[in-house]
Amino acid sequence: MAERRPAAEGVAAAAKRLASHVTRTPLLPLDWGGNRVWIKAECLQQGGSFKLRGAMNRLLLLSDAERARGVVAFSSGNHAQGVAIAAKRLGIEATIVMPSDAPAVKRDATLAAGAKIVPYDRETESREEIGARIAREQDCALVPSFDDVDVIEGQGSAGVEIAEQLGEMPDTVLVPCGGGGLSAGIALALPEAEIVTVEPLGWDDMARSIVAGEPVPVVEPAPPTRCDALQTKRVSTLTLGALRDSGARGIAVTEGEIEAAMAFAMRQLRIVAEPGGSVALAALLAGKAGAVSDRTVIVVSGGNVDPSLYAEIVAGS
Amino acid sequence: MAERRPAAEGVAAAAKRLASHVTRTPLLPLDWGGNRVWIKAECLQQGGSFKLRGAMNRLLLLSDAERARGVVAFSSGNHAQGVAIAAKRLGIEATIVMPSDAPAVKRDATLAAGAKIVPYDRETESREEIGARIAREQDCALVPSFDDVDVIEGQGSAGVEIAEQLGEMPDTVLVPCGGGGLSAGIALALPEAEIVTVEPLGWDDMARSIVAGEPVPVVEPAPPTRCDALQTKRVSTLTLGALRDSGARGIAVTEGEIEAAMAFAMRQLRIVAEPGGSVALAALLAGKAGAVSDRTVIVVSGGNVDPSLYAEIVAGS
Repeated sequence: MAERRPAAEGVAAAAKRLASHVTRTPLLPLDWGGNRVWIKAECLQQGGSFKLRGAMNRLLLLSDAERARGVVAFSSGNHAQGVAIAAKRLGIEATIVMPSDAPAVKRDATLAAGAKIVPYDRETESREEIGARIAREQDCALVPSFDDVDVIEGQGSAGVEIAEQLGEMPDTVLVPCGGGGLSAGIALALPEAEIVTVEPLGWDDMARSIVAGEPVPVVEPAPPTRCDALQTKRVSTLTLGALRDSGARGIAVTEGEIEAAMAFAMRQLRIVAEPGGSVALAALLAGKAGAVSDRTVIVVSGGNVDPSLYAEIVAGS
Repeated sequence: MAERRPAAEGVAAAAKRLASHVTRTPLLPLDWGGNRVWIKAECLQQGGSFKLRGAMNRLLLLSDAERARGVVAFSSGNHAQGVAIAAKRLGIEATIVMPSDAPAVKRDATLAAGAKIVPYDRETESREEIGARIAREQDCALVPSFDDVDVIEGQGSAGVEIAEQLGEMPDTVLVPCGGGGLSAGIALALPEAEIVTVEPLGWDDMARSIVAGEPVPVVEPAPPTRCDALQTKRVSTLTLGALRDSGARGIAVTEGEIEAAMAFAMRQLRIVAEPGGSVALAALLAGKAGAVSDRTVIVVSGGNVDPSLYAEIVAGS
């Protein structure tokens, strides 16, 4: 059997399926460089990031028997919250494998949504292995954070909303990229738009993988970054394939550019953006986005950040 | 001629007139106390507060001759930005009379929108007198921040959106209240809903005016408050009349409750709320809102706050 791949039809179906389960996040105008660009504020999604979309789509597609056995996921935080919230709404038990150094704000919110947390050491243990073992032992479904057709198609519902809210096809969409689930989903939703993945410098393996035509891992040792949500060391063939097919390109931003974008989002847009959620906005502000038009869209993908770190960045701006 | 009063029909007309000029701000869900309540995030409006609605409605209704002569307004900041942005969009010159101690973030944004600022001393000078003198000298229209039919009806467009987004009439709407323009407009837009005005303790002259049946000024000396947007010392008969007719009631919150609400909005809603914009949310969180249901709506009316103050409040939470 040929491997199923994420597709535009699946994204359209996911958008319909999800309409009553996720928030239609606003597309906020921003006057910038003589143009009016648009901010898709997914930090205002339930759980504070786009992750509810993919998780909910995956869980809605489980059979009753699968739902009864619960689900397991591994995540640095945002996907954990997405799975935990979706599971709680649907009455499904969720176990989350989470790095022991995940931001407290993300860990607490996952617990608050009723999920069980299994911590692991980011340096010495493999979350993939722990997740797979739990799935095997409990005979329950694993909900991957990006390497999954249903998850990618669910994330793509954000792209469907962008086209509807803009009233036309965007020229360019800049998307924060970890494993590539959101950018691949949006690429499928908006086939005529140029998709630009944005990553922290040194973690821009999607950019290099697009050029190479195959997954190229992050070069070790990777530099420190505040983008805990984007510390994915290898993209998947599913996400890379969708992005390659759409003609996407990838760029990288510095930690300083990311902090400036977080402060800008606070002052000019009045939205709370976490480091990883701010990288696409950082690319715009740093002049790295290329040509900008009234049909340029910037995705701010998450807003879960520890208050003390946030205060430090906002006050230092 | 009988004095014209703000009315439901005028609010409906304003909502139509404004649809292409203002952002349809999101109604965000918040699970609270076993209910799902709704946050109308007007801090995401252009200019960072609901004020663009009333200012734009007033300016759109000016004749060409009036537009050519420019406009003048007095404001602590948010109304200034609303008028400045609306004027710039319509090619109208704007002069803003602003207290010399207004937050820098509000002053800077008003200048950035191309308006001229005339500073005054909040303690010793009357902004009403300065504004009236400029209007007389320049023969130009004064755009009041709340004591004006067109302005109140424009603010009411937020209430029209609430009903449309909720898909039904809300039970209760909690609204931050300074002069009462927003709460009066929403009361007219949502005649079947209970309107609750929320003010900082010691500045709750609307609450007392509703009880008294006539404008009762703030008792001097009023306590210090961080709610620069709500330091109105006397409401108007127009706003009070609309609120009395709707059966509104008023409550007050403390500075500590306001800070807690700002921090909560950052962590749980990922929106930046200024002190004055947070008072209704503060009332909910403090248990002062009365009965809560799935049709309770909380308006967060603005998000313009100096980053250093914001950082202090967020980090201290």
